[in-house]
Amino acid sequence: VSDPRELIREKRDGQTHDAAELTGFIAAYTRGEVTDYQISAWLMAAFLRGLDETETQALTRALLDSGRRFDWSSLGRPSADKHSTGGVGDKVSLILAPLVASCGVLVPMVSGRGLGHTGGTLDKLESIPGFKTRLSPEGMRAQLDEIGVVMVGQGPDLAPADGKLYALRDVTATVEFEPFIVSSIVSKKIAEGAGAVVYDVKCGNGAFMRDIGHARSLARRLVSATRGLGARASAFITDMSQPLGVMSGNALEVRESVDLLRGGGPADVRELTLELSARMLELAGVAKDHAAARAAVERALASGAAWEKFVAMVKAQGGDPASVGHPEKLPRAPVTVEVKAPRAGSIAAIDTFALGELVVSIGGGRRKKEDAIDPRVGLETLRQIGDRVKSGESLARLHLAADDAGAVSRAAACFTIGDAAPPMPELVLERVD
Amino acid sequence: VSDPRELIREKRDGQTHDAAELTGFIAAYTRGEVTDYQISAWLMAAFLRGLDETETQALTRALLDSGRRFDWSSLGRPSADKHSTGGVGDKVSLILAPLVASCGVLVPMVSGRGLGHTGGTLDKLESIPGFKTRLSPEGMRAQLDEIGVVMVGQGPDLAPADGKLYALRDVTATVEFEPFIVSSIVSKKIAEGAGAVVYDVKCGNGAFMRDIGHARSLARRLVSATRGLGARASAFITDMSQPLGVMSGNALEVRESVDLLRGGGPADVRELTLELSARMLELAGVAKDHAAARAAVERALASGAAWEKFVAMVKAQGGDPASVGHPEKLPRAPVTVEVKAPRAGSIAAIDTFALGELVVSIGGGRRKKEDAIDPRVGLETLRQIGDRVKSGESLARLHLAADDAGAVSRAAACFTIGDAAPPMPELVLERVD
Repeated sequence: VSDPRELIREKRDGQTHDAAELTGFIAAYTRGEVTDYQISAWLMAAFLRGLDETETQALTRALLDSGRRFDWSSLGRPSADKHSTGGVGDKVSLILAPLVASCGVLVPMVSGRGLGHTGGTLDKLESIPGFKTRLSPEGMRAQLDEIGVVMVGQGPDLAPADGKLYALRDVTATVEFEPFIVSSIVSKKIAEGAGAVVYDVKCGNGAFMRDIGHARSLARRLVSATRGLGARASAFITDMSQPLGVMSGNALEVRESVDLLRGGGPADVRELTLELSARMLELAGVAKDHAAARAAVERALASGAAWEKFVAMVKAQGGDPASVGHPEKLPRAPVTVEVKAPRAGSIAAIDTFALGELVVSIGGGRRKKEDAIDPRVGLETLRQIGDRVKSGESLARLHLAADDAGAVSRAAACFTIGDAAPPMPELVLERVD
Repeated sequence: VSDPRELIREKRDGQTHDAAELTGFIAAYTRGEVTDYQISAWLMAAFLRGLDETETQALTRALLDSGRRFDWSSLGRPSADKHSTGGVGDKVSLILAPLVASCGVLVPMVSGRGLGHTGGTLDKLESIPGFKTRLSPEGMRAQLDEIGVVMVGQGPDLAPADGKLYALRDVTATVEFEPFIVSSIVSKKIAEGAGAVVYDVKCGNGAFMRDIGHARSLARRLVSATRGLGARASAFITDMSQPLGVMSGNALEVRESVDLLRGGGPADVRELTLELSARMLELAGVAKDHAAARAAVERALASGAAWEKFVAMVKAQGGDPASVGHPEKLPRAPVTVEVKAPRAGSIAAIDTFALGELVVSIGGGRRKKEDAIDPRVGLETLRQIGDRVKSGESLARLHLAADDAGAVSRAAACFTIGDAAPPMPELVLERVD
């Protein structure tokens, strides 16, 4: 690489980087030859001047190339994964991963932890006593070969530059920039060896993308960056104007996932899981069209095949199978409190972001990476947008580590009750291919 | 200070900082509570989004407040200083400082070293054997009281945040930004205790500001930031489309300064020195108007008072008075070579920047801070714009450490010889008050 100042100056002045140069710059940063303060200046210049699709792809490739790239082709089955941009109550991964695996597609799912108002798949899984989210590459391969699904955290050798870069973005106010978000997500999905990726881009007041325009743009870039690195891709833009399902909180979401895997559970979670799973089967080439894929995943859910796969995975990763077979054995909060409707009417809106923040504030999430999580606590959202309620009826139920009147009143304030019933929001807003 | 990310985000989004907040942010950086990478992101955001006059002033104050601020009022005389934005052959400070001091105004001049194509006052002074540019604050006070002038480098306690910030700007492509340039210059001038500051903003192909619009904007900001911190100020925009005077190079410029202090020397250096000096006298309040000030500095130059002051300063700072009394004793390059005109005609233009770079390349300047300087080498510019030359006549004379045919041909290429004689450029283009 030439002088890093040249590259910073180029972006500062609004020019477009040569792809190889940009890749070299990030690679030099990974090797420690470009300093944090130089990357910070570049991050801000890129944030303000923009990165086009080719540059985003080059950045993604650089993050990918900073570590190892898994290749599961020797296992003789196609692989696929799903990534959600994050919302409240989004436990789809816990159901979808074993479900898709039970249909013959490898799911090498690498997930993250919760940060801010959204939950994280790893945190949810770790509320299962004994469940381990760290596997060696050899362990991953063996489990994929045997069971077809792993659900793990990002190892230190997977896109390590992304971790370094994210830490810097976090402290330099350069997080909320689409090309950075895209390269971070896509590099990890490609590194884990997924041959196809389905994206669930959340949109609404509980999502990072609050309007459909931004969600659409992100969805397009995710798909194009993924394809640019040789994997199939598709994106759904889905509603996050209210929590998904009933449960929000780590052990609570595992309980709801178990319900779903056993054929019960809320309709919205079930429907979204089936749609995303079916698309994975299509992209992986194991179903000839959407109808066939949808029939296959419905069958796998109804037959108990998905549930068996989930139990096998929990066992393989050290988790206590009894605690998922009897979810009442999962960690439980000592206090539950009903959140009552102050008046009669219809639920007009739910401040989903605030509900997510509430779960964090009662111990169910993190403000800083170092924060510990209480797996027991959380929230049941008992009413959805459009539902009618009587005065004094329960809107929600809080699961608390200790009495907390403030939390109850804050939860109540998240529900707007009006006179007319608004239409129930569409679950899937758009698909981007 | 609140979270540094808030301030970075504010500037990133094009908002204006509260002055106290910005001052606090820089102060926190000075104390090590804000990291280099956070400041780098802010530097780039400010570079691209801009800083207004109030913000520039707040930044200047923060740099100033990071160290000590000298106060010479107990010495019972007014003080003044001059700052040049840098050019080729600009040795005005060496003459002006003792000249103004000989008129009863304290000159506590803190200068820098050369970097890039422009020379630095400290480097020039250090070509006088024994001359010391580091004085303790007590030493500065004693010498100012006794002689009325000191010429020193920036001590570690003078605007230390500026040094830290400049080092970061240098490696993050954020050097060429007016508010940063202004705050860096003005904070040091105020810290050294100058009660009045005259700025010489160079404009032309040998200056950092190549066009009059940028020079004017910089001049205005320098004046307003200086006044905002309680000192009087005035700025001249002066020509740098050819080297100032004949000599460029460290010992060579000391020789030329000695010539001027003894009543000789090139007319352009003399005229500019007198104008800038006269303005300092006016601002310091020791002359009632420009005519009186001009008469006073001309008298001090003609009478030998300025020269005596210079010799006294050299002695006081440990320099060998014999080497300035007999400038042939200053370090001399072993090789001198004439640069000949390839054709007859008139000098139409001089590539002043390239001549400055040439002096650096033969050892007379620095590319990096760590580079050593050869005080002996340099260049005599023997023809100015508008002069007629015959083919084979000398355009310039190089003073070299060793034969260097490449340097000679590069020097020749800096002179454009045309048929018609263009007008001699005006020396002083504008004054900004």
